[in-house]
Amino acid sequence: MKTQEGIEKAAENLKSNGIDGLIAIGGDGTFRGASKLYRVSGIPIVGIPATIDNDVAGTDTTIGFDTAVNTAIMAIDRIRDTATSHERVFVVEVMGRRRGFLALEVGLAEGAEVILVPEIRFRVEDICKKLKRARREGKTSEIIVMAEGAGDSRDLVHQIERGTGLEVRLTVLGHIQRGGSPTAVSRILACKFGSRAVEMLLEGVKKRMVGIRGRRIVSVDLDYAWREQKELDLRLYRLAEILSA
Amino acid sequence: MKTQEGIEKAAENLKSNGIDGLIAIGGDGTFRGASKLYRVSGIPIVGIPATIDNDVAGTDTTIGFDTAVNTAIMAIDRIRDTATSHERVFVVEVMGRRRGFLALEVGLAEGAEVILVPEIRFRVEDICKKLKRARREGKTSEIIVMAEGAGDSRDLVHQIERGTGLEVRLTVLGHIQRGGSPTAVSRILACKFGSRAVEMLLEGVKKRMVGIRGRRIVSVDLDYAWREQKELDLRLYRLAEILSA
Amino acid sequence: MKTQEGIEKAAENLKSNGIDGLIAIGGDGTFRGASKLYRVSGIPIVGIPATIDNDVAGTDTTIGFDTAVNTAIMAIDRIRDTATSHERVFVVEVMGRRRGFLALEVGLAEGAEVILVPEIRFRVEDICKKLKRARREGKTSEIIVMAEGAGDSRDLVHQIERGTGLEVRLTVLGHIQRGGSPTAVSRILACKFGSRAVEMLLEGVKKRMVGIRGRRIVSVDLDYAWREQKELDLRLYRLAEILSA
Amino acid sequence: MKTQEGIEKAAENLKSNGIDGLIAIGGDGTFRGASKLYRVSGIPIVGIPATIDNDVAGTDTTIGFDTAVNTAIMAIDRIRDTATSHERVFVVEVMGRRRGFLALEVGLAEGAEVILVPEIRFRVEDICKKLKRARREGKTSEIIVMAEGAGDSRDLVHQIERGTGLEVRLTVLGHIQRGGSPTAVSRILACKFGSRAVEMLLEGVKKRMVGIRGRRIVSVDLDYAWREQKELDLRLYRLAEILSA
Repeated sequence: MKTQEGIEKAAENLKSNGIDGLIAIGGDGTFRGASKLYRVSGIPIVGIPATIDNDVAGTDTTIGFDTAVNTAIMAIDRIRDTATSHERVFVVEVMGRRRGFLALEVGLAEGAEVILVPEIRFRVEDICKKLKRARREGKTSEIIVMAEGAGDSRDLVHQIERGTGLEVRLTVLGHIQRGGSPTAVSRILACKFGSRAVEMLLEGVKKRMVGIRGRRIVSVDLDYAWREQKELDLRLYRLAEILSA
Repeated sequence: MKTQEGIEKAAENLKSNGIDGLIAIGGDGTFRGASKLYRVSGIPIVGIPATIDNDVAGTDTTIGFDTAVNTAIMAIDRIRDTATSHERVFVVEVMGRRRGFLALEVGLAEGAEVILVPEIRFRVEDICKKLKRARREGKTSEIIVMAEGAGDSRDLVHQIERGTGLEVRLTVLGHIQRGGSPTAVSRILACKFGSRAVEMLLEGVKKRMVGIRGRRIVSVDLDYAWREQKELDLRLYRLAEILSA
Repeated sequence: MKTQEGIEKAAENLKSNGIDGLIAIGGDGTFRGASKLYRVSGIPIVGIPATIDNDVAGTDTTIGFDTAVNTAIMAIDRIRDTATSHERVFVVEVMGRRRGFLALEVGLAEGAEVILVPEIRFRVEDICKKLKRARREGKTSEIIVMAEGAGDSRDLVHQIERGTGLEVRLTVLGHIQRGGSPTAVSRILACKFGSRAVEMLLEGVKKRMVGIRGRRIVSVDLDYAWREQKELDLRLYRLAEILSA
Repeated sequence: MKTQEGIEKAAENLKSNGIDGLIAIGGDGTFRGASKLYRVSGIPIVGIPATIDNDVAGTDTTIGFDTAVNTAIMAIDRIRDTATSHERVFVVEVMGRRRGFLALEVGLAEGAEVILVPEIRFRVEDICKKLKRARREGKTSEIIVMAEGAGDSRDLVHQIERGTGLEVRLTVLGHIQRGGSPTAVSRILACKFGSRAVEMLLEGVKKRMVGIRGRRIVSVDLDYAWREQKELDLRLYRLAEILSA
């Protein structure tokens, strides 16, 4: 699907197998490919957003995102269990090469003292100041949740150790966040998206993606989903800052 | 808080301690009491809906509800693990004395063949018919999710065994559903509700409850929350029926 | 495998497929059948004990037992989370129709105030006395772990409510205990048993079961495994009584 | 407790508070300190081994070890969930600065293709050979479990990528392994150790550590516990190699 040739072959295969409608499940890469496939084949395609990164425009959330957030917080809860007795700073790297949706929700849910996302610049000296102030005010441990795209987590550990004199420990969750049994939110979203996608194909839709806005199941043009940049909710970010102060 | 005398004493205590605003966290019982307390004391009160039953009007969901749904599905997943090799029907009783919000979401997320809620009448013979048809069509096990208020689960087990000749096993989740570490959805909702509740007190609100509608944090009169009956989402119920057919 | 005819057919199938050794994984029923199959077919058989009930003689423990114990305690932990604020007695029925191995380890690990197993007679009035004394001494909630073979859990709930005036709630774990991902103990035991079973077949053993005694992998005659009655560890039972007093 | 002065002060505090017996819970550092405290104060001390590292001589296992092993495997299971579709090598760093007990049990339980522990030298080119052979033989993903003391995990990732051309991803579990609710094995061990430690103090023991050997609760001199080097079970290591081949 990554070359023009591949897409033409895929289109042929679909036609020769009598496929007259397609449901494409995935993220922006999937939808970019699906969109080309539609243009080549003319076969109606409905996209279902399913990625732990939640970086798909036209929908509030994606299948798998809530699952990944919960996986991360259940893991970080275990760090919190012993954190206060260890008197350390913990840096936890979560997924998100380009976007900070996962880091933001994880950090807020975990009450992280610092949340680092690719969308917002930060200076290590500001982090060090915040940590030192937290110690002076009586905190005995702090958690920094960092999207992998926000910088090099191991460098950050060294810089904070040098800048504060505090002991810093690193956890890199990695692909743990891609597995596990789906949460209720992810499952119910899958039920709604799947059901609506089938209806849309039956209704004669050509190239759309299902999504959710508040409680409503909606749809957008498939190209919108991967061409538009979804905005990070800065109010959530500020809420996290207020609550961890 | 259950007697007029108790409420008057509570009002006195609040005043003598110089309390000039109250945040009441709980379900309809809590809000009924809080409303009386406001009338007696005049102290501004903001309610935060937090109950695993989700039976509070004026808000789509409550703190704790998503946690309880996930606790139940993680438990029922374990039944699914061995269900097909056991060739049995499993009845799982979940909480919900008067309302079926929990049973409905759990049943949908679990792909339960039958979901029984207090709001919708059912006949055991219809359930038996559905189960027998499922066996004829090749299913080797079925799960029935039942709100405790929908009937007597143990009687249902016996009636289905008599009506179908199938082996039926019972699980009663009980208070397992009230515990556990909160999910991301419950935590983030708590962050939003808590923050907004404080703002509302500062803004001079007298007797309201915070809630969520879609993605928006809203508020309703505190009395609305417990006087109004929140409707079960029948579209979800039908979706569950379609997907488990 | 339950009729002589079935066993003869199984023996034939094995021979006609050129099978010259068998590893039978299961509990006493499996080994009873395997033993007959050996006598009819002469094909060497090594049994591997794998049952959540742990009721197999000749081995300290079985594959799956530790998994089931952990599943039960993770569930009951959630009851403990809110138990003290509810001021109730919780009866939790765990698996074990004839034996109390599971109930005993779960009860000990959970610090249950009362553990009921089929091997030890009890009088409801003694339980009621213990519960009433616990309340006088300041406990605000109690957990009773009961093997399903120790009596009718729902009757017990009613009898305790009548005998103490306390509110009693029931949880029936049921088949939840049969599923889930295996624990480290169960997995490593499976590695050791499986490896040793293969070696034994290669060494020319005819009809044995592998087992574990302390840290040593041992073997016993296959018939011993299901004919002998494994004893419940009464020291564990007394330890549980002491620790929950 | 780290200076002679500190220990003398601790001894004084114990005496002035009328403490005539001490139970010290921890690992080798705790027991080293406890031993000095005994020599200075003469107060009888019984040690209880509780460390996730399991690096205490005189006992097969320690409180917390089984919990940490299970935490690690539940996390790595989530990597396995999507590993085959990603066609990658996953390096998972687990705790163990000086010893490989945790890495070994985790690796065996997880079926890891490679297990790296501080006690056994390895060459990166041998790992690369093994991985390339695995791919030729049809494996689509491999997991390497590495104790933190076995080398630099990030360097290993780069070396394997260069040596094999395969994509390699890193997870560093870190302090996640120190938290969480204890498993049944850890809880029951705590019951047995705690009960025996109290008995030993009552029996007039002066300076011992409780331990477990097979199924028997034993005791050793407290100094033995931290002076002796416990051996890694090389048979387990070979078993892991055989099963993952």
